[in-house]
Amino acid sequence: MSYRIEKDSIGEIKVLEGKLWGAQTQRSIENFNIGSDKMPMEVILAFAILKKAAAKVNCNLQKIDKKKAKAIMTVCDEISAGKWNAHFPLKVWQTGSGTQTHMNVNEVIANRANELLKEAGIENITVHPNDDVNYGQSSNDTFPTAMHIAAVLSLKTKLLPSIEIMKSTLQEKSNEFSSVVKIGRTHLQDATPLTLGQEVSGWHRMVEKCEKMILDSIEPLMELAIGGTAVGTGVNTHPYFDLFMVKEISRITGLPFKASENKFQALTSHNEIVYCHGALKALAADAMKIANDVRWLASGPRCGIGEISIPANEPGSSIMPGKVNPTQSEALTMIAVQIMGNDATIGFAASQGNFELNVFKPVIIYNFLQSSRILADGITNFTTRCLNGITANEKTIKDYVDSSLMLVTALNPYIGYEKAAEVAKYAFENNISLKEATLKKKYLKEEQFDQIMQPKNMINPQE
Amino acid sequence: MSYRIEKDSIGEIKVLEGKLWGAQTQRSIENFNIGSDKMPMEVILAFAILKKAAAKVNCNLQKIDKKKAKAIMTVCDEISAGKWNAHFPLKVWQTGSGTQTHMNVNEVIANRANELLKEAGIENITVHPNDDVNYGQSSNDTFPTAMHIAAVLSLKTKLLPSIEIMKSTLQEKSNEFSSVVKIGRTHLQDATPLTLGQEVSGWHRMVEKCEKMILDSIEPLMELAIGGTAVGTGVNTHPYFDLFMVKEISRITGLPFKASENKFQALTSHNEIVYCHGALKALAADAMKIANDVRWLASGPRCGIGEISIPANEPGSSIMPGKVNPTQSEALTMIAVQIMGNDATIGFAASQGNFELNVFKPVIIYNFLQSSRILADGITNFTTRCLNGITANEKTIKDYVDSSLMLVTALNPYIGYEKAAEVAKYAFENNISLKEATLKKKYLKEEQFDQIMQPKNMINPQE
Amino acid sequence: MSYRIEKDSIGEIKVLEGKLWGAQTQRSIENFNIGSDKMPMEVILAFAILKKAAAKVNCNLQKIDKKKAKAIMTVCDEISAGKWNAHFPLKVWQTGSGTQTHMNVNEVIANRANELLKEAGIENITVHPNDDVNYGQSSNDTFPTAMHIAAVLSLKTKLLPSIEIMKSTLQEKSNEFSSVVKIGRTHLQDATPLTLGQEVSGWHRMVEKCEKMILDSIEPLMELAIGGTAVGTGVNTHPYFDLFMVKEISRITGLPFKASENKFQALTSHNEIVYCHGALKALAADAMKIANDVRWLASGPRCGIGEISIPANEPGSSIMPGKVNPTQSEALTMIAVQIMGNDATIGFAASQGNFELNVFKPVIIYNFLQSSRILADGITNFTTRCLNGITANEKTIKDYVDSSLMLVTALNPYIGYEKAAEVAKYAFENNISLKEATLKKKYLKEEQFDQIMQPKNMINPQE
Amino acid sequence: MSYRIEKDSIGEIKVLEGKLWGAQTQRSIENFNIGSDKMPMEVILAFAILKKAAAKVNCNLQKIDKKKAKAIMTVCDEISAGKWNAHFPLKVWQTGSGTQTHMNVNEVIANRANELLKEAGIENITVHPNDDVNYGQSSNDTFPTAMHIAAVLSLKTKLLPSIEIMKSTLQEKSNEFSSVVKIGRTHLQDATPLTLGQEVSGWHRMVEKCEKMILDSIEPLMELAIGGTAVGTGVNTHPYFDLFMVKEISRITGLPFKASENKFQALTSHNEIVYCHGALKALAADAMKIANDVRWLASGPRCGIGEISIPANEPGSSIMPGKVNPTQSEALTMIAVQIMGNDATIGFAASQGNFELNVFKPVIIYNFLQSSRILADGITNFTTRCLNGITANEKTIKDYVDSSLMLVTALNPYIGYEKAAEVAKYAFENNISLKEATLKKKYLKEEQFDQIMQPKNMINPQE
Repeated sequence: MSYRIEKDSIGEIKVLEGKLWGAQTQRSIENFNIGSDKMPMEVILAFAILKKAAAKVNCNLQKIDKKKAKAIMTVCDEISAGKWNAHFPLKVWQTGSGTQTHMNVNEVIANRANELLKEAGIENITVHPNDDVNYGQSSNDTFPTAMHIAAVLSLKTKLLPSIEIMKSTLQEKSNEFSSVVKIGRTHLQDATPLTLGQEVSGWHRMVEKCEKMILDSIEPLMELAIGGTAVGTGVNTHPYFDLFMVKEISRITGLPFKASENKFQALTSHNEIVYCHGALKALAADAMKIANDVRWLASGPRCGIGEISIPANEPGSSIMPGKVNPTQSEALTMIAVQIMGNDATIGFAASQGNFELNVFKPVIIYNFLQSSRILADGITNFTTRCLNGITANEKTIKDYVDSSLMLVTALNPYIGYEKAAEVAKYAFENNISLKEATLKKKYLKEEQFDQIMQPKNMINPQE
Repeated sequence: MSYRIEKDSIGEIKVLEGKLWGAQTQRSIENFNIGSDKMPMEVILAFAILKKAAAKVNCNLQKIDKKKAKAIMTVCDEISAGKWNAHFPLKVWQTGSGTQTHMNVNEVIANRANELLKEAGIENITVHPNDDVNYGQSSNDTFPTAMHIAAVLSLKTKLLPSIEIMKSTLQEKSNEFSSVVKIGRTHLQDATPLTLGQEVSGWHRMVEKCEKMILDSIEPLMELAIGGTAVGTGVNTHPYFDLFMVKEISRITGLPFKASENKFQALTSHNEIVYCHGALKALAADAMKIANDVRWLASGPRCGIGEISIPANEPGSSIMPGKVNPTQSEALTMIAVQIMGNDATIGFAASQGNFELNVFKPVIIYNFLQSSRILADGITNFTTRCLNGITANEKTIKDYVDSSLMLVTALNPYIGYEKAAEVAKYAFENNISLKEATLKKKYLKEEQFDQIMQPKNMINPQE
Repeated sequence: MSYRIEKDSIGEIKVLEGKLWGAQTQRSIENFNIGSDKMPMEVILAFAILKKAAAKVNCNLQKIDKKKAKAIMTVCDEISAGKWNAHFPLKVWQTGSGTQTHMNVNEVIANRANELLKEAGIENITVHPNDDVNYGQSSNDTFPTAMHIAAVLSLKTKLLPSIEIMKSTLQEKSNEFSSVVKIGRTHLQDATPLTLGQEVSGWHRMVEKCEKMILDSIEPLMELAIGGTAVGTGVNTHPYFDLFMVKEISRITGLPFKASENKFQALTSHNEIVYCHGALKALAADAMKIANDVRWLASGPRCGIGEISIPANEPGSSIMPGKVNPTQSEALTMIAVQIMGNDATIGFAASQGNFELNVFKPVIIYNFLQSSRILADGITNFTTRCLNGITANEKTIKDYVDSSLMLVTALNPYIGYEKAAEVAKYAFENNISLKEATLKKKYLKEEQFDQIMQPKNMINPQE
Repeated sequence: MSYRIEKDSIGEIKVLEGKLWGAQTQRSIENFNIGSDKMPMEVILAFAILKKAAAKVNCNLQKIDKKKAKAIMTVCDEISAGKWNAHFPLKVWQTGSGTQTHMNVNEVIANRANELLKEAGIENITVHPNDDVNYGQSSNDTFPTAMHIAAVLSLKTKLLPSIEIMKSTLQEKSNEFSSVVKIGRTHLQDATPLTLGQEVSGWHRMVEKCEKMILDSIEPLMELAIGGTAVGTGVNTHPYFDLFMVKEISRITGLPFKASENKFQALTSHNEIVYCHGALKALAADAMKIANDVRWLASGPRCGIGEISIPANEPGSSIMPGKVNPTQSEALTMIAVQIMGNDATIGFAASQGNFELNVFKPVIIYNFLQSSRILADGITNFTTRCLNGITANEKTIKDYVDSSLMLVTALNPYIGYEKAAEVAKYAFENNISLKEATLKKKYLKEEQFDQIMQPKNMINPQE
């Protein structure tokens, strides 16, 4: 392999020929050879947006040359198009400010911009990663800015659309099953009936509420740290740099980002990420509950609850032929558990800022983006490959309702709590029906009983 | 000790004379002799509100007798006044629906109401814990309703007021220190300067943002499950019972509670609690950061950073006289850590619902209320006994600024990044000032240097 | 109320008449009015052991007067007997070194010792909380010592005995059900059979393994920090003070405590607690699994799995008569979830030491002892009030086995995986038995099938 | 692209030409297109060991043909050598039993073995993924077996060696600094002195204790589930299959694996992983403490504590020249925080088993292996690129000791606690030395003071 020599304030270093990164990226590769977790590509893409906006703003402010700016902006578009993915090799486990990834971006942009300038025959101009690409900026304000851009885009373009799909499928299923009366279960014990449609409507409402929570908790993420530079004062930048940048970033993304009101907070606190991930955790908890309900309702085929059937997407077992497993539920519940752990990591990391900087930024955004990504994909898969294909096993459902003792609750208003309990107990002990027990106990006449005891009357309030 | 005999659907049981509870409470005492953690009193107080409202509503609906209703309402007021605290002995670790605490409330109310009726000479009427106090209700809708009422009241009457105090103290301190220029620190390394007032303004903004998050995340908690009864269908209750109840509860508390739109969700999902606790976690993370900054800035007295002094509230050590420790910071950071753990518990518990009920309700509300309570008290204490008394050690602060190499950043726009780095390195290695180094290197003339190098010019953006 | 005036290095302060504590305790009451969580009594009791040992050692070393030592030792015995519980009012949320609780102990001991001396007519001798009770010690070595003593005693006297009870009950139940052949379930789907005794033996083995883990992880807790004094150097104490103390503490407790090999580690790291709590978390995870299995197997009575019955300890619901809920499972699973959160708190807190001290000690030991206490009580209750009364519903169990398709696995070695899968699918689709399907497909003759298809042959390995 | 058609019990499916996997792998690719997290390669490598052993055992038992066995074993060696890494494309988020990865392994082995047989001119023999590669096994026993093998190998070959390096570096540094007397700090406040060597010895002891914990907690992981097949009974396998397998696996790895005593536990509980990860968490907590101490001691260069210097591995900031950041500390503390979150995930996942299987296996092993991997790499990097290059700034260290008031503790035994406190307070308030204050107060004569007040006498116990 052949190498070229790069240089930074520390000294010289060898970089593999053909790689667009420079000295500081190379040092990080060597100093942080840790694990296999790379800085998420979403962060790089967010930086491409930020650096494009900065080139435009700095050009407008006449701080960098127009030709340089144009070249930088072109490179940013190339990065956005996925052209240089292989040139961002750094790990999550690096400096806690994300400076090394930030410099990776600056270096790739500068080197590629210089190629473009050369290709265009412009020889006397050289784009510098710090003096040009990073003009008026610092790692300390750009990295948290990129974190917020990446987080918001991930939620808006991946997670929220997946929630929409789930909601609409649940709405359809709730309608489809609106007249299937089934037994309710509380404490895993038989309870009063409801319709399968009602049960599914509860799932729908969970997801709908979580969607609202996520939307609300995106708001604080719309504030960007840009303009704070090194410690939040904005030293070495234009007094309105934050406003100019936010306007450009909003234009590029089509989303109404705002300048953070207080940059000292923005560099050293990550309450926005903690809060928003709390909404993801709420969603994860509900997703777990729904996925669990689905697999329990589909348990069987002959020795479980078996009220519903789910699609058979793959052979279930390497040794037991014919078995179909709730694998989509399993993937989603594993994802939910992962989100719980990620939430612990994020909260802890966010608490560890000191003075003007929190240096746990890479681990925070790595976990946040993983959560958003796997929740989005997991929910989409679960919806399209499982929820969507659920069918009701109406015979089984009806048999349960008919055999249940818990309809006895319907007698409460007529014979009182204690007598009703007595009837249920008597039926249970003698393995007879509620009707037989009630008549035996002479608490009601047959026609009274039949009029009262209609499961479909128990699925709504009535006096 | 003397006992009376109580009875429930299981059979007879002995209850200590003088205790207002009944058979089901007594069974729980015996069956769940676990640890020392009682159901939080805030839950009992919320139930008192709920049961008062229910008596009024059921009376209006002519479901229970006016005299009974009046007696029940009087007892609820007595409970609210703290008169019967000793009659709610149950532990957190009981049935997961909270039914036992719910029955504890029903039993105490019924027994005490019967005492009141007797005292009033009304002999022929007996209040029944189920048929009267619990008319039209179930544990499954009342317990989550009480959870939400308790959570909202705790936040509104304890936590949010403590945040107000902290915010106002931070605002004052930020103003007080607005002209104290100090060194910034990032990565624990010297950085460009800012004012102590700016540093404190960052803390203020953190708390302000968390306050907004808490306020926003209270919204979902305003929805109440009442009216869902046993499984969410509202079986055995009036179709508008939810609306009537919510109106009464809102009247009593002065807070705009709403009926949950979907009771199936309300009984089996606790996304509202998870989400809102996420906001508490954001606050805990920031509180930890602030409390840590305070103790590091106050570290010393002679071998630490020592930029500020904090009040000496107590002798610091049993062996080292004269030492004053940042004990308020220590209490607050321990609280922050506890909130992180509570958050893990709540998220996990909320994910474990099955079918029509989540049976992890007591552990969820126990953790939520502990978080709210200790955050509120901890923040109030920290503010009034520490933050409030902070003074700036201006001499120390000035000495640091004067000695710092990091003002070199101010030279960047004049001599470029690489030469500035060279100057700083040279000053560091030769243990001389930046000025000496710059002049030695002949990068600037003395008058140029002096004009550029003014710390107070570095605390704001400038081109 | 009447007060007396106490004094410390800060100044004067009023203490309620009749209370044995002094100035420093009183300051903590006033400075740390936070929440309702008191320093666990187990810590106070551990301090009583420690202070008794110290009095003996210091007396032997002729550092404190024999009469003082005797008085101190008597008070320690009184504390151990629970006589002065009401005199330890401090909260968990105090100084992070636990100094305030430590001084509370020193003050109560000194004041009570002086009462004893006075009662004995010894007037000219006064026990001083620092100079006598705390001779040769510091909060920084005594508090972690008390933490370890409290933790070990809690595990040895509460948790491990509860595990013994559970193990022995599970062993009995495993034997009792050793010939009940039931269907296995993996992925909640029907699988090959096993006996109910085998299923329970899995639970037994879980608990047995966790017991071993707890026993192993107690070892590091046997090391005591005592002798390190303020920063780990042992300044102001006898070179062998650690050895003398450990010998006395071992004598009093009957347990082989050791002197920590490196006191710097002992004051500032709590890896022993983190590690040991990891074993409690392993137990919590298994307890959750067992409690969940029990409630699912007992689900019904008519619309669930219903393979076992559990004792009815209380009425299940305020609205649904006759229902019996798995409340012991519910309490135990809530406890398991609490342990998970406590584990997060402990790990986080243990990571936050700085230099010569970790100041998160109270929150660490508070969580550890709660975990040990509620696990111990929860396991005992669950065992004696639920596990112990489990009965097998043999008819239901047999019906499942007979109807299951999964016995088809037994055909694998005879007709191969793919044909076996075909048979199962055919039986499922046509709602017929495996035998009918196999014969229809002509893969085996009837007598071959009958010989192969014996569930009880499938509960052990065979070629 | 060209495809070939594969088939399983569900039907036909297209697989990309050149890929060794089969139908079931392909279905998983399509059904579980979730996130970017692949099943860790360590699991695949563990499977290669397991499948090699199984081929040998089954060949010895005459269950599979010798030529087949030989081909399978050759493929396993090829996988171990990393030759087929690109043929294991599946994600973590798949079926919770890991069946799909297990089938991926079986399919790749079978297809490649058939290539080998063909190349060798053996035409009439075909290796079948289920009937041959998986003979006598199930996903349910092989996957947990592979988990344990992968976990143990990761700890033994990566993490424990990294700990050895750290320990030996800390030992050297402790020796190097054994006579550098420095100020102690508790509560971040000045305390009595110790040597820098002693401080580092505390770090050494932390790591040493964690190493012991990890070694102890590996023991339970040495038990393998193999032989349990589908539900733990061992149906469809040889009665001694477990023993034969364990012997072969031990031979291949050189590690003393054992057969799990109870396979029902082994399939459905993962207490071994939870427990062992608790030891990793203990290490993470200590690593965080050490990395924090290092960066605080190195804080500055002019406005921090500055007692030590650490190597400058890279330029610190894109805007502030000359700044050197503690980036290795930052990476390691981010890793520590990640381990805390992973621990939460693992504990939760391990608690969610039902009946005969826990279906959270992939998420458990994914988190465990990430923890082991990043801890190992992070510790190695931190040691070799930071710890190793630490130098003591002896002048700064001495200046602190000389100025400190906390040496006053040395006076306690001579003038008593209260007078000593008075002296320190007086010196502090008048900004004078302890000596001046003591003489002024006339508590000691000059020669007495000088004799007592020798910092190096305070670094060890003395009476």
